[in-house]
Amino acid sequence: MGRHGLVIHGGAGVTLPEEVSPEGRRACRAKLVQAIDTGYAVLDRGGPALEAVVAAITVLEDSRLFNAGSGSVLNAEGVCELDAALMDGVTLRAGSVAGLRHVKNPIALARAVMDKSAHVMLIGEGAERFAGRVGFPLVTNDELQTARRIEELAREKHSGKKPGKLGTVGCAALDKSGNLAAGTSTGGLNNKQFGRVGDSPLVGSGTYANNATCALSATGEGEYFIRVCAAHDVSALMEYKGLGLEEAAQAAIDKVQKLGGLGGLIAIDRDGRVAMPFNTVGMYRAYRRSDGSSLVAIFDGPEPAA
Amino acid sequence: MGRHGLVIHGGAGVTLPEEVSPEGRRACRAKLVQAIDTGYAVLDRGGPALEAVVAAITVLEDSRLFNAGSGSVLNAEGVCELDAALMDGVTLRAGSVAGLRHVKNPIALARAVMDKSAHVMLIGEGAERFAGRVGFPLVTNDELQTARRIEELAREKHSGKKPGKLGTVGCAALDKSGNLAAGTSTGGLNNKQFGRVGDSPLVGSGTYANNATCALSATGEGEYFIRVCAAHDVSALMEYKGLGLEEAAQAAIDKVQKLGGLGGLIAIDRDGRVAMPFNTVGMYRAYRRSDGSSLVAIFDGPEPAA
Repeated sequence: MGRHGLVIHGGAGVTLPEEVSPEGRRACRAKLVQAIDTGYAVLDRGGPALEAVVAAITVLEDSRLFNAGSGSVLNAEGVCELDAALMDGVTLRAGSVAGLRHVKNPIALARAVMDKSAHVMLIGEGAERFAGRVGFPLVTNDELQTARRIEELAREKHSGKKPGKLGTVGCAALDKSGNLAAGTSTGGLNNKQFGRVGDSPLVGSGTYANNATCALSATGEGEYFIRVCAAHDVSALMEYKGLGLEEAAQAAIDKVQKLGGLGGLIAIDRDGRVAMPFNTVGMYRAYRRSDGSSLVAIFDGPEPAA
Repeated sequence: MGRHGLVIHGGAGVTLPEEVSPEGRRACRAKLVQAIDTGYAVLDRGGPALEAVVAAITVLEDSRLFNAGSGSVLNAEGVCELDAALMDGVTLRAGSVAGLRHVKNPIALARAVMDKSAHVMLIGEGAERFAGRVGFPLVTNDELQTARRIEELAREKHSGKKPGKLGTVGCAALDKSGNLAAGTSTGGLNNKQFGRVGDSPLVGSGTYANNATCALSATGEGEYFIRVCAAHDVSALMEYKGLGLEEAAQAAIDKVQKLGGLGGLIAIDRDGRVAMPFNTVGMYRAYRRSDGSSLVAIFDGPEPAA
C-alpha cells in the first residue's frame, strides 16, 4: 500500500474555548505538532508503527502540558499514579502498566513489558521492580509533579466537585508495511481515588490494535469506556458488522454517551482513514498522513496545521 | 421467560486424569456441587443473577481447593496476589480489583467497588484501603496461603519450568427476570512475576455480561485472553455476527489457541443455553438449570451430577 500516517490525542474534555488562554492553547498546539512530526519521521523512514506510537507519546509525556508522564494530574492523596498500554496490530502482542509512581515514561515501560516479560500487564510496585530490572531509571514522585497540577487538586478538593479534568494522551499509527499499532498514557482523573485504574492501560477498553481492522486510543471518563469495551468494540464492529472506521468509532462513543459518559477517541484503519469522534467540548487532536493531509485541532472547528 | 440457571468453572488446565487423586477429584466435585447449589438457591427464590454469581464464587474462594481466595497459588516471591471482577448484564456496571494481598473474598470486594465507589477498577494498596473503609476485615497474607501451594511454588522454582498450574474460578448466571451477570476470581499463575495481572479482573478479557447477548467467565493463560479480548469478543460475535452462544464461545477459544494459549470459558445466554469450551486436558465445570438439567465435569467425558 505504501500509505502511512498517524493520529494523536492529548485528551478530551477540555474546558470552554474562552477558558483556555491563548498562550496555553498555542503551547499545546505546538507540542501536538512536535509529537506528530516525531512519530511521522519514524514512519517516513520506514520504521514500524509501534515505534512511531512510542516516539509520539514520549514527546507528550515529557511535555509537562498534558495529563501523562511528567505533569500528570494528582490523585486524592496528592500523588501521581500513571498508567499506559501499547499494542501491536501485527501480532496482537500488548504491554500494559498501571499504578506507577516512579517511572517517567510509562509508554516505554509498557513496551518493555511487551518485549521483555512473559506477561501483558504489570501493576504498582511489581511493575516498578521490573522497570528497575530492565534498566529504567526510577524517579521520585515529586519529579513528575507540576505546580499547576498541585493547584488544580487543591481547587477541586476545595470545591468538592467530582473529578473534573480529563486528559490522557494517545496515538495510533499505520506504517509503510501496512502494520497498525496504538498506545495510550495517562495520569488518570484529577483527585481520583488511590489505586483507581481507568481504561487507558486496559487492552480492549482504552487501547486496541489489530491489522485486520484498526488501531485506536481513547480518552475521557474511563469507567464508561471499560464497561462497553470501547476500543475492542470499534474493531469488532468493523470486523463482524462490516462498519467503516468512522461509523464504528462514532458507535462506540455513542454507547459511552448512552451510559452517561464523556470522552473521545482517535483511530486509524489499514487504509489510512482517520476518525476522531468525541462528545466533549473539545479534544486535543492531530494527524498527519503521507498523502500530505494533516490537522491540528482542539475544539469543534478544525484548525488547519500551521 | 422464567428460565434460570448458572454455570461455574474451577479452572482449566488440570493435569492428566491419572495425576489427579480420586480423593482430590471427589473433593473438588463436591465443592463444585456446593457452589452451584448455593448460587442456584439464590436464583430459585427469585434473587438477582449478580447475587447468585457472588454466592457461588464465594463458596469456591473459601474452599481452599481452587486457585482463588484462600488457597490461591503464590507469586514468585511467595505471596498470594488476588484479582477478581464482577459484571452486571442489565446495566453494564462492573467492579474489578487486582493485586490484593489482604482480602479474603476478592469477588465481594469487586462488588463493593461496583456498588460503593465511583470507579470500576481499584488495585493494590488503594483497593485495600477502600476495602477497609467499606468494612471488609483485612487478613494477613499467611491466612490465604496453604501448605499445598507453598510446596507447588517450591517445586516449580526448583524445576525451573514456566508457570504451570492454571486455575481461577468463575460463574455466569441467568435469573428469573432474564438478567445476566458474570464474575471471576483468581490467584493468577503459580510463580508469576510480582504485580502480574491476568485476564480475570479485566472487563472484556476474562469477564463480561450483557443482557443483549450472554454472561461469561474465562480461565487459562490470561495473557492470550487479554490480547483477543476474549470475553467481549464472545458477546460481539453474538451481537454483530449473529452467532449462537456455543459457536461464539468456541470461536474465542480458537483465537486464544491460534496465538498459542491454553484455557477455557463458561458462558450462559439469555435463553439459558450454556457453553463450556476449553482446549486444555480438562476444566473443572458445572451447571444447573431450572429445566432440571445439570452437569459436573472435569475431563472431556461429562460426569453426570451425583
